[in-house]
Amino acid sequence: MKKVAVVGYGNTKFTKDELPIESLLLESTKQVFDTTKNLSQDLIDGVIVSTNDNSKYLGAILSELSGIKPKISHTVEHLCSSGSSAVISGFSYIASGLADTVLVTGADKIGNPGQILEWDKSRGEYNHPIYWASMFTKAHKRQFSTTDEELAIVSAKNHKQAMDNPNAYSHKPYTISEIMNSKNVTEDLRILDCSYSCSGSSSILLTSEENTKRFTDEPIWISGIGQKTNSASFTKNELTTLSSTVTAANNAYKMAKITPQEIDIAEIHDAFSVCELMAVEDLSLTEKNTGATYVRNLFNTEDRKINPRGGLIGAGHPLGATGIAQIVEITQQLQNKAKNRQVSNAKKGLTHNMSAAATSSTVLVLES
Amino acid sequence: MKKVAVVGYGNTKFTKDELPIESLLLESTKQVFDTTKNLSQDLIDGVIVSTNDNSKYLGAILSELSGIKPKISHTVEHLCSSGSSAVISGFSYIASGLADTVLVTGADKIGNPGQILEWDKSRGEYNHPIYWASMFTKAHKRQFSTTDEELAIVSAKNHKQAMDNPNAYSHKPYTISEIMNSKNVTEDLRILDCSYSCSGSSSILLTSEENTKRFTDEPIWISGIGQKTNSASFTKNELTTLSSTVTAANNAYKMAKITPQEIDIAEIHDAFSVCELMAVEDLSLTEKNTGATYVRNLFNTEDRKINPRGGLIGAGHPLGATGIAQIVEITQQLQNKAKNRQVSNAKKGLTHNMSAAATSSTVLVLES
Repeated sequence: MKKVAVVGYGNTKFTKDELPIESLLLESTKQVFDTTKNLSQDLIDGVIVSTNDNSKYLGAILSELSGIKPKISHTVEHLCSSGSSAVISGFSYIASGLADTVLVTGADKIGNPGQILEWDKSRGEYNHPIYWASMFTKAHKRQFSTTDEELAIVSAKNHKQAMDNPNAYSHKPYTISEIMNSKNVTEDLRILDCSYSCSGSSSILLTSEENTKRFTDEPIWISGIGQKTNSASFTKNELTTLSSTVTAANNAYKMAKITPQEIDIAEIHDAFSVCELMAVEDLSLTEKNTGATYVRNLFNTEDRKINPRGGLIGAGHPLGATGIAQIVEITQQLQNKAKNRQVSNAKKGLTHNMSAAATSSTVLVLES
Repeated sequence: MKKVAVVGYGNTKFTKDELPIESLLLESTKQVFDTTKNLSQDLIDGVIVSTNDNSKYLGAILSELSGIKPKISHTVEHLCSSGSSAVISGFSYIASGLADTVLVTGADKIGNPGQILEWDKSRGEYNHPIYWASMFTKAHKRQFSTTDEELAIVSAKNHKQAMDNPNAYSHKPYTISEIMNSKNVTEDLRILDCSYSCSGSSSILLTSEENTKRFTDEPIWISGIGQKTNSASFTKNELTTLSSTVTAANNAYKMAKITPQEIDIAEIHDAFSVCELMAVEDLSLTEKNTGATYVRNLFNTEDRKINPRGGLIGAGHPLGATGIAQIVEITQQLQNKAKNRQVSNAKKGLTHNMSAAATSSTVLVLES
């Protein structure tokens, strides 16, 4: 398999503004051109868009707006993890030899579909993510004696870390007490435990090993890929483990030939506070039933290892962009360009994304 | 690059029935299981859906409905050529080594979006395909003295060929005179020159070379791939050549190391009669300005080389399914299993798909 690297990136601010999807896509794409050495339109032979927007033909529209005439263009959708799925498609086009250089751009705008799975509604199932998040939270409390304070620490940490992310949706710090006393949206979920759907776009440029030098002296390699879809339906007999994440992580570590202990920094899908506690365990970054202690320790020592850009809770969650924004952050960290967010000496990073109560998950390992 | 083969397929009838998108996807998928030797759910590690439907997470939904727990699942959209784009993604996952066996299932239901590009509307452009088709037709008549009879022959041939396709939308033969006298939808376009949006689904199963024997004794290899996106907007200064098709075809022939003269059978995107006349030229199956004569000769000799299943005009055009249905037909032809539609001694086949006035095109070469 050919090696594939991230060699450029762009990000818009994540906001509540109702911007046209085309403008969002174009803005982060323009940043890729503005910041990537020697990049010109004719060097890009694939344009893959990830979004939950209902607009069609956005791969061709973004190509036209940005002056690219690629071979490959299309849109990828897979709910919350659309961006990660699109990146792996870009990887596979290059790894197979069908393309040399692929732009992957994700975007969603506030109010877009994708947050609610209409299929659930058609079957009489609870259709808003707060329902599965509430069940996860209640089950986690029961099984591991997790406290409201431990849940609030996730949100406090990620809101605090988002303060140093100029593109984050939230730029307000919250105390643990403020989070614990924020409005209850269900019996077990406070409003400040939830990520926000918002408008935003993120892009990365992927290329093959032989092309990296043209664009950067600091390529970041995608060395591990793991994906798993268990179902589309939330399974109520498994409420304290993200089993698709376990499978995806194991496959990603295996492909990268590393152990979880070697991960220096991770972007994790914290759609709700409880998700981060579960994910750090299911990614084997800490042992089962130690997630809350692990995150509390990071918070107390101001260690930004998990969700340095603020996670979905702090940075916001424009669905199609999220998986790509995670990769942009890890790329900046591994290039030692993350400014106030920088984790020292980060060499190996991970991104974790999931959709619909972790019925599917994607894990990527990146290395400098 | 690893070799990739088509080793299974399924098709629903193409109808005007308003069926749920999930049911359509499941029906053609079920056929793949019913007709592919030794296929079980655990052998499939990728499920890619192609559609213009606004439903989300269909890759996971189809996986759950069909009992598959794949690594990879997502939806691909690229208007009319969504199906072809999804197949090439499936190819790239296998060719790169990220997957062994991928199910690619496309579907759309009557009335789905995708036929009209809303982006055109937002810019004040004519937004229905009949407008570009009318301009193509008028320009073709002017430049090549193409007659209404020559255009009608395309439709007569494809409606006739669809009579032997049990899944076709149309099962009614039309005389050239009936077509020429059918209702004018614009000055240059008769209703019987148009393909119909309809409900339908098609699936193929792709696998790597080492796995083919498990599933079939007659693998059909995807030996050539060509794709090109020139823009999203219809370009009025190029009305008699499908230039994205020219580029895609040349790349596909080059990858397959064959000449156009070696093609025995072709599935061509005849959304409107004029498209087939242009495509047979731009795919280099005949010389420029000889398309009408070429098609007339096929019609007169009852040669089914072009659009044996009836093309989009006869078989119908459920957008997300079309590119896959084309591959199913070529696979059956190259396996000598096309029954009444069989072209004798077909060894090398081609599929041609395009979107939005051929602003993008995809060409695949298949070989037995």
